[in-house]
Amino acid sequence: MSIAVFYHHNPTETAFLSEEESYHGAKVLRLKSGQEIHILDGKGKKFQARLENVDSKKSTFSNLKLIEQLENPPYRIHLFIAPTKQMDRMEWMVEKCTEFGIHSIHFFHSRYSERKEIKLNRLEKIAISALKQSKNLFLTEIHPIQPIKQLISLKTDATKEQKLFAYITTEPIQSLINSIEANKDYYVMIGPEGDFSKEESQELLKNNWQAFHLGKAILRTETAGIASTLAIHLFHEKNK
Amino acid sequence: MSIAVFYHHNPTETAFLSEEESYHGAKVLRLKSGQEIHILDGKGKKFQARLENVDSKKSTFSNLKLIEQLENPPYRIHLFIAPTKQMDRMEWMVEKCTEFGIHSIHFFHSRYSERKEIKLNRLEKIAISALKQSKNLFLTEIHPIQPIKQLISLKTDATKEQKLFAYITTEPIQSLINSIEANKDYYVMIGPEGDFSKEESQELLKNNWQAFHLGKAILRTETAGIASTLAIHLFHEKNK
Repeated sequence: MSIAVFYHHNPTETAFLSEEESYHGAKVLRLKSGQEIHILDGKGKKFQARLENVDSKKSTFSNLKLIEQLENPPYRIHLFIAPTKQMDRMEWMVEKCTEFGIHSIHFFHSRYSERKEIKLNRLEKIAISALKQSKNLFLTEIHPIQPIKQLISLKTDATKEQKLFAYITTEPIQSLINSIEANKDYYVMIGPEGDFSKEESQELLKNNWQAFHLGKAILRTETAGIASTLAIHLFHEKNK
Repeated sequence: MSIAVFYHHNPTETAFLSEEESYHGAKVLRLKSGQEIHILDGKGKKFQARLENVDSKKSTFSNLKLIEQLENPPYRIHLFIAPTKQMDRMEWMVEKCTEFGIHSIHFFHSRYSERKEIKLNRLEKIAISALKQSKNLFLTEIHPIQPIKQLISLKTDATKEQKLFAYITTEPIQSLINSIEANKDYYVMIGPEGDFSKEESQELLKNNWQAFHLGKAILRTETAGIASTLAIHLFHEKNK
């Protein structure tokens, strides 16, 4: 049987699992005191530990040992997306993007947004679950919803960062995989189901957001989020 | 308002919509007699027509005109996949792969399969809906479940076709995007949640299926299906 994996944002600080993780270990996996577990801190470290007191609210562990540590990756993806009307589409996207590996997901609302609020906590749980399942070591940060205005004017350092947005236009623009420069921090923005307004697109262009397309098909918002994440990974894979 | 789009596998043959499509037009979109509609045949053709009698079981149309026709694409993707225990994961995958564009999805069961039957009809409906939404012109073929044995021995012409399977191994193998040769018919096989058995992997290799990996993360079955489809499209996009 494979070893049970838990998430703890800082296992060197406190030697007990969160209520959520404790419940999972005690009631779903039915672990016993003395069993070996793995703990991910979501920041590149994987630990081994021994379960002490198994409790559905607060399980404790001991013998913490660092067994794997990853350096920060050479590039990072930050997705900025307008949440879809159906929240399950966002949940599914968070799961898939976490499986592929993504640094952060930021939500925004704009002129034609269908949704102005999200349940951050639920998305964080999905990201934690996908992290454990995928064996990635970096947990996706999930950021609260904010107005698009704050993002449009985002200041970045063009030598290290690249700002890109999915633009539905008849003008000739590049596809994402042909737009990106290697090993940067990518800020990728995907509009709502009703698309960006004309003014928003113009403001993005004025503020040095680079327009890209994702092919001829009309992708749903969540599909565009996944396609962008994968395009960046595959660009680096192809150029290895 | 945008023009309503319907699917009809051969609108030049019979001038009425299926019960499903008729219901959608009459009850969901509430179209009226005389309105213009678009009809996709799922084989590369898009027509314009006028609704005659609007009926929730059998709507008729007239004035059929071909307005767009696509040649067969230079490459095609055929996905062979073991269905997941949770069927909604397969439904999501069918939707996403249809959005990205995929020629066919074939299901199989193998030694460690979690599921031996699927509801073909439901998946076909999802593919039709995704076709209409994405504005693609080719409908994804959904094929019934079959034993893996029939697929392993699949005979192909190596000058036109490439057989590949996702192999979880410590041996050094290539990633998918670095494995494919341009403009072929790709037969891509993804194993079940419990993976291929050792014997199955060996048989695949013996029968000239090329092993590939999808990166370091452990992807769920449906995620691997989506990632493979996108990798092939992005390979062609990158080499344009």
